[in-house]
Amino acid sequence: MRNILIIGAGKSISFLVRYLLEKSEKENLFLTIADIQLENARVLVRDASNVELLKLDIFNESELKTAIEKATIVISMVPARFHIQIAKECLDQKKNLITASYVSDEMKALDEEVKNAGLVFMNEIGLDPGIDHMSAMKVIDEIRDKNGKMILFESFTGGLVAPESDNNLWNYKFTWNPRNVVLAGQGGAAKFIQEGAYKYIPYHKLFRRTEFLTIEGHGRFEGYANRDSLKYRSAYGLDDVLTLYRGTLRRVGFSKAWNMFVQLGMTDDSYVIEDSQNMSYRDFTNAFLPYSPSDAVELKLRHYLKIDQDDIMWDKLVELDLFNKDKRVELEKATPAQILQKILEDKWTLSESDKDMIAMYHKFGYEVNGKKHQIDSTLVVTGEDKTYTAMAKTVGLPIGIATLQILNKRYTTPGVQIPLNKELYLPVLNELETYGIKFNENILPYQGYNPNNVAG
Amino acid sequence: MRNILIIGAGKSISFLVRYLLEKSEKENLFLTIADIQLENARVLVRDASNVELLKLDIFNESELKTAIEKATIVISMVPARFHIQIAKECLDQKKNLITASYVSDEMKALDEEVKNAGLVFMNEIGLDPGIDHMSAMKVIDEIRDKNGKMILFESFTGGLVAPESDNNLWNYKFTWNPRNVVLAGQGGAAKFIQEGAYKYIPYHKLFRRTEFLTIEGHGRFEGYANRDSLKYRSAYGLDDVLTLYRGTLRRVGFSKAWNMFVQLGMTDDSYVIEDSQNMSYRDFTNAFLPYSPSDAVELKLRHYLKIDQDDIMWDKLVELDLFNKDKRVELEKATPAQILQKILEDKWTLSESDKDMIAMYHKFGYEVNGKKHQIDSTLVVTGEDKTYTAMAKTVGLPIGIATLQILNKRYTTPGVQIPLNKELYLPVLNELETYGIKFNENILPYQGYNPNNVAG
Repeated sequence: MRNILIIGAGKSISFLVRYLLEKSEKENLFLTIADIQLENARVLVRDASNVELLKLDIFNESELKTAIEKATIVISMVPARFHIQIAKECLDQKKNLITASYVSDEMKALDEEVKNAGLVFMNEIGLDPGIDHMSAMKVIDEIRDKNGKMILFESFTGGLVAPESDNNLWNYKFTWNPRNVVLAGQGGAAKFIQEGAYKYIPYHKLFRRTEFLTIEGHGRFEGYANRDSLKYRSAYGLDDVLTLYRGTLRRVGFSKAWNMFVQLGMTDDSYVIEDSQNMSYRDFTNAFLPYSPSDAVELKLRHYLKIDQDDIMWDKLVELDLFNKDKRVELEKATPAQILQKILEDKWTLSESDKDMIAMYHKFGYEVNGKKHQIDSTLVVTGEDKTYTAMAKTVGLPIGIATLQILNKRYTTPGVQIPLNKELYLPVLNELETYGIKFNENILPYQGYNPNNVAG
Repeated sequence: MRNILIIGAGKSISFLVRYLLEKSEKENLFLTIADIQLENARVLVRDASNVELLKLDIFNESELKTAIEKATIVISMVPARFHIQIAKECLDQKKNLITASYVSDEMKALDEEVKNAGLVFMNEIGLDPGIDHMSAMKVIDEIRDKNGKMILFESFTGGLVAPESDNNLWNYKFTWNPRNVVLAGQGGAAKFIQEGAYKYIPYHKLFRRTEFLTIEGHGRFEGYANRDSLKYRSAYGLDDVLTLYRGTLRRVGFSKAWNMFVQLGMTDDSYVIEDSQNMSYRDFTNAFLPYSPSDAVELKLRHYLKIDQDDIMWDKLVELDLFNKDKRVELEKATPAQILQKILEDKWTLSESDKDMIAMYHKFGYEVNGKKHQIDSTLVVTGEDKTYTAMAKTVGLPIGIATLQILNKRYTTPGVQIPLNKELYLPVLNELETYGIKFNENILPYQGYNPNNVAG
């Protein structure tokens, strides 16, 4: 029996647990799911065998030590900031580790020790980051294998609601951490390169600078820029690429409407609203509008944002109950962002049977023998219900598959790393296809931003 | 002989030095001006007697100690963050201290010791903060003396160019630290109260939510909200006031034009622009606009900001050379704000003979016996030239006058404080009038935001 320890039993582990339990007989696996709260895990495992639940406080050193001692390999699914203590314990006990989170500076600092110990600490192997890395590197490596020179790379990912469960004017529901959605794009200007020119978009313009993208059979989407599109420039070997842009996908119209919240100041998380617990939703809206003894909040808002009353933007606001006098915020010392999150959660929470959807879109532009080409690669995954979401599937399956690759010593390159190595991403992508996570590749004439080399 | 030590010989000391030298015979004063750079002080004192210049590095403890030993009283004119070491030395040596800066937390923490030593550490006694405090408290105290209840207080101050030197489309030149002008309003939402309702304005809307104000004989101005209008609410005894708003004055049209920089993202100081030293002004502008192989920077900007080519907003941008291909930024690793500051300094720097202007506008609303009243109090001061500016006058004279009040023991209330005490502000304001710094008071019917008590 090989013992796989999953630490952290949040909503994203449903598919991971299902995958590992399916494999447990054949692969001779025993699964331990450890968390301080085990309700969610209990629902997932029910009466399955080869699995146990362990109440674990990761801040209790001896508990953590004991749990890892019994493990052959460790998967950390705790919030990103808590990985480091688990990583240090894994290093001490010479256990391999898998996480789906961004590599923190602290984690990176372990690299040399991890290498010396011959261990694999694999990070960023969920969806985004994760499948985006692997699917992009696969095409980039193929282009290089035919002596192509990369000139453009754009990559967009979105967690959305599936069309069959899409019943609000925003064409959006929360399928992941709502707080991250409310704060998306904050903390600095978005930075990217287009045709060799660096471009910067301040937060308050971010949602007005979208690109449209069509995925065959799934209609039109829009993408807005991520904060730092250049983050993986060197890691992907794209230091000379002329266009590099990473973004987030939404259904068309979402960003324009979201921009209303940005313009009003409702997404601000940097200060606390006075007397927030006693406010109505209407009071909250009014706090961002000029005082008037005569004009109603509705008129003030339409005037301020310059929207007509027959504009769909207006209906989107009304749908959220933003002008309701009777609904109370009921959050003490809350920031605008926290209050907005609550208002949105009233309307944008998945119901039990709702299905979510993941969409990913990569564009690769390259040159071979002086000729430009383009490959567009797209992925759409639909969830089963509120528990077995597309998000949990696309996060959990690559983790599960990579865990077995490492456990079975089919992948052994040591170090603190992300999945850019062909020896890992090929088997993972191949197995993902058997679960319906399959990219559609389209070869098309090069488009880019300046296909005819017009002088700018 | 009483020795007055001025530490810091920057541009704001011209009037302070002139005032103290004028008084030196009659008041038996000897003035020491200490700084690491003494060029500016040398020009100011020329061949005056009763004064010496002292080369002083305030970070050299023994130098600082010796300088303060010789002083009867100390005026600190160094940048605000450096006051604290001077304050600690003054406390050790039991010397009174005057500064024009905001009271820092560190300074405040000395209060008890300063009181126990029977010392006066007077801060915020320049223009803003300074004259604003004193002139406001005078009217507020008068209203209270006739049993009035304050219901509204608004206060605006601006450092501007005098009409006779106003020769650009922005009706603005730098008369104080340009960096503070470029960063004005950043760091969080502006917060204030109107008719009992808290209001919040995010930075990207700040310059579109102005109020107009007219000062008789000086025309129209506009005011935008300061970050925290509630800062002095308790200190002024205005905890129950329904409207409290503090703002910055500009000539009408400045804010709408400045908002273009905000919308583009050019005022951002939080990140560095790639390859800034080799950029032209045109490249800088283009970095905030979408890429296009065919459209010129000019058209892209007009389209992005939705301005017509015959709009005065457009002329304001052209006047600044923002589209110039040949002018280089020449700043290494510069933030957008640093680059914008340089571009503006090319055009907005006072020439030798240029005169600046200070404008201040207070509105006081109050109720006596159920009847509402309003007093508007305004001040306009014009400078003499680039050295003897209205800014240096309105900062330096209150410092000089307060210094003599304290030196002559006419004001002795001990502690770390700001000039809200009648015993200090009355003699200071009275003497300021003899130098032409005189408020015009207008009694008018109450206006406020809701004079007829309409239900909102």
